[in-house]
Parts: sequence; structure tokens; C-alpha cells
Amino acid sequence: MLKVAFQGERGAYSESAAMTFFKDPIETVPYPTFHDALESTEEGTTDYSILPVENSLEGSVGESYDLLLTTKLIVTGEIYHRIRHCLIGFDGMDKIDTVYSHPQALGQCRKFIQDRHLKPVPTYDTAGSVKILLELKKDNIACIASRRAAEIYKVPVIKEGIEDNASNYTRFLVLSKERRAKSQRDKTSIIFSIKHVPGALFDVLEKFHSNKINLTKIESRPTKATPWEYNFYVDLEGNQGDPNIADALEKIKPNTIFLKILGSYPRAELT
Amino acid sequence: MLKVAFQGERGAYSESAAMTFFKDPIETVPYPTFHDALESTEEGTTDYSILPVENSLEGSVGESYDLLLTTKLIVTGEIYHRIRHCLIGFDGMDKIDTVYSHPQALGQCRKFIQDRHLKPVPTYDTAGSVKILLELKKDNIACIASRRAAEIYKVPVIKEGIEDNASNYTRFLVLSKERRAKSQRDKTSIIFSIKHVPGALFDVLEKFHSNKINLTKIESRPTKATPWEYNFYVDLEGNQGDPNIADALEKIKPNTIFLKILGSYPRAELT
Repeated sequence: MLKVAFQGERGAYSESAAMTFFKDPIETVPYPTFHDALESTEEGTTDYSILPVENSLEGSVGESYDLLLTTKLIVTGEIYHRIRHCLIGFDGMDKIDTVYSHPQALGQCRKFIQDRHLKPVPTYDTAGSVKILLELKKDNIACIASRRAAEIYKVPVIKEGIEDNASNYTRFLVLSKERRAKSQRDKTSIIFSIKHVPGALFDVLEKFHSNKINLTKIESRPTKATPWEYNFYVDLEGNQGDPNIADALEKIKPNTIFLKILGSYPRAELT
Repeated sequence: MLKVAFQGERGAYSESAAMTFFKDPIETVPYPTFHDALESTEEGTTDYSILPVENSLEGSVGESYDLLLTTKLIVTGEIYHRIRHCLIGFDGMDKIDTVYSHPQALGQCRKFIQDRHLKPVPTYDTAGSVKILLELKKDNIACIASRRAAEIYKVPVIKEGIEDNASNYTRFLVLSKERRAKSQRDKTSIIFSIKHVPGALFDVLEKFHSNKINLTKIESRPTKATPWEYNFYVDLEGNQGDPNIADALEKIKPNTIFLKILGSYPRAELT
């Protein structure tokens, strides 16, 4: 059975996303950090890692983007996973004054929390906050996590679907050591940095444009080496082996300081 | 004396940034959330708000970008503020096993924390974590905040400069109700969203390029209305009243669904 590494406690959204992505049964393996999860796949302890990269409400997961920069793994798949948050606790809504969860989950339920004047307390993991609550056993504390986490730790669901916006999806990337075969509807993810001169980004984008390559995403992140120099994370429609993409990637090389092809993989649909 | 709203407790990096930005003495006013700080300026209780938008190591502050989308205030200034983190606690390094701080500060000291096998605990505020420690009075807990926070709450500094990378700057925007006079070295910040069609972003960037406008930043953030539709946050060199910028902003209108000019302001230098 395939082993898939995820960050978090049992019941984490990452674990559910992995189980949906691989239709056949898999063995999911929890790790405390994203770094540990990726390392397990690099070392062959696991076959795949699943990494959340972006949420439709909260934006990018910074730590994941940093790891993509340095990992030796190849991106071989993506999935958009619907996030439906539950308020989980031992008593009813009127006793609750404090709510524990991962900062992204707290952010996604900001309106719900502010309207009820709850005190938000950030924790390391959505499912992990249910585990903490199980130890604390306090009536005034609730947490925000998946229905599955509530079921695993056997703490009641007080209210389901408390996210401020129902269009709440997280995009996960699936990584492994092996490149995958080309499909008919691939996407290619790349990272590059450019010289800090006027028009440098435009020159790169122009080369994709003139090769009729559509960009599905562009994101700038600080390089960490020099303040306010950026790495650009770009997703292109097509496979890195397609002539127009291979040609464009060759043409942009002189414009870039750094260029990394993360991988080509079948693009996922919103379900 | 000018009143300047900031988010956090006394001793927060935002407060120091405000004091550096306004050379003359100011009255700094703490607020629990970014939203409350901006509201105080919108209602006239304070004259200015200062908002962290981006860190050279951790990237964008998502909540600030969301507030820029909706605020009625105008961006009238920016400052790059050097962040120098201290480990603050009652005892020496060898007793410490847990460290409290804001998630961004924990992220900026990730290597320091991992190397010493400390347990990171996210809190709402760097300076606020020193206030918590003062109440807990525990020898095994330290927190990460500024030297100024240590001095205000009278908790010793164990180690200074524990950030993983010395190039640690946060960019803050200063907002007010009034537009400011044009300077010789202005920057203009805008937000726009575009139709989800191939080449749409390129068409917008092409109009800036052909009007000889240099982009200093581009950042995509989910719109929250439709999954994976993005707002683009773009900084341009020049003032919105400059003929080439005014003309380009007019020309891109047909390509955008939404276009907001946040303001023009003198660009800051890294100091």
C-alpha cells in the first residue's frame, strides 16, 4: 500500500485531501512539520508527500512555498480540497468564550469569531486543537477543525460550516521522487528570480505570451537573500516537454538569476 | 501632537516603526486588531494608522492586504523597519524549552528554534507574549520580541539578534484620510482584478510597460468571491497624477473587473 506523508495530527485536512487524491486505499503517515513530511519522502520512508500551498480565502502557505524552493522532490499532482470547518466542544454555544485552532482556520472563521466575541487562540494544527481540548476538558473552550477530527477524538460538533465564506478550498500539491507520465491536460509549476531591473518581469512574461502559454497563477515571494528581491512562482498550462513550453523555458534563462521546474502534472478540477 | 494608531501591545514593532516614520514626537495609540486601528483613523479618533504589509523573510501579511481592499483610507507613506528579535525570559538558555511569540516572529527564528529543540507556541503579538510571560513567571518559557518590549515589561534579554537571517525588514504603510502632496520620488499602489481569460494579466502589464512605468511589486491574492480568482496588488514608480500613469490607469480599466488606487506616496529607502 502506498505511504503518504502529511503534516499534522490524524484528522487533519491534509490527511483527508490525500485520501481523496489517491482513489485506492493508502497508508497516511503523520509528521509534526512540513519539512519532516518531505524528508520522509526524500529518504524513501514514504512514497509521497502532500503539501497545502494555497487557500482560496487566506492565500498562500508561506512555509510550503519556501520548502518548494529547496526540495529535491517533484510535483506530480494537485487537488483542490473543500474545507468545511466545525465548531467542536463539550458544551453549547452559550458557554463558549474561547476558540482554539490553526491561525489559517481562525482567519477563515474571523467573522463567526468576532460576531460572538470569542477569544481566538492560535494552535499548531486544526485536528491538534481537538486533541488539546480532550486533555483540557473545559466547557468554555471550543475548537475549529474537520468533522473527521471531531469523530476521531470523540468530541461533539456544536456547529458545522462556520467558515465566513463557503468557497473555502485548499490547494494541495502531491510530491514524489519520480517524474510522472505526460497527460492531456497538464500544468507545469516553475520558480524563478530575476534581475532587479525595470521591465525584467515583463520580459519573462512576454516570452510565455508569445509562445501562446497561459499562466494560471503568479505569486511573488521574498528571496530571503536580498531584501525585496522576489522569487516568482508561476503555473503554466501544459507539460514541460511540450515544444512551446520547452522553448519558452530556454528563452527566459538569460533573464533569470534562478530557475527551477517543480514538475508537470494533471491539473485538478474544483469539485 | 499627531495620534498614530497601531495594532498590538506597547513595545510592538509597529509602534517603533511609527515613531521612526514621524520624526517629530507623536502619540501612539494601541488597538487589539488591524481593523480597530484603521477604524479609529476613519472615525477621526486618530490621525494616522500604521499597517505592516510585508516582511522580507516571511512575505505578505494577509490580513493587512484584505483590509487595504476595503478601507476608505489613503496610503500616504511607507517605511522599511529593521526587525531585530530578542529571546526574552527570566532564566538562562539551558532552562528554556518553550518559546512564545507571534507566528511571523516564530517563522523568522525557525532555525534558532529547531536547532535548540524548543516548542514554539503562537501568540497574538510579539510584545504581548512578553506581557503573558510576566504573568506566568515561568523559568522554562521565553518569548521573542523587540528589545524595547523587554525594557517596557522589565523582563531580561537572554539573547539578541536570534532571527535566522539578518536581512529582516518589515514594510509598513501609513494611512490617513487626506491625500498627500506629490513628491519627486513617489510610488503608487493599486489593486485590480481581471477577467479569468488567457492573457488578461499580460494585457494589463503590457499597458504599464508601453507607458514606461516600472513595477516595483506584484502580488496575487485570492478574491474570496470566486475560488482562484485573484486580486493583484501592484506598486508602480511615479505619482497617480503623472501623465504616463494617469493614462495607463485609464487604459487598463476595460481589462479590469475592479480597480482601486490606494494612494501615491514618497518611496522609502532601506536604511
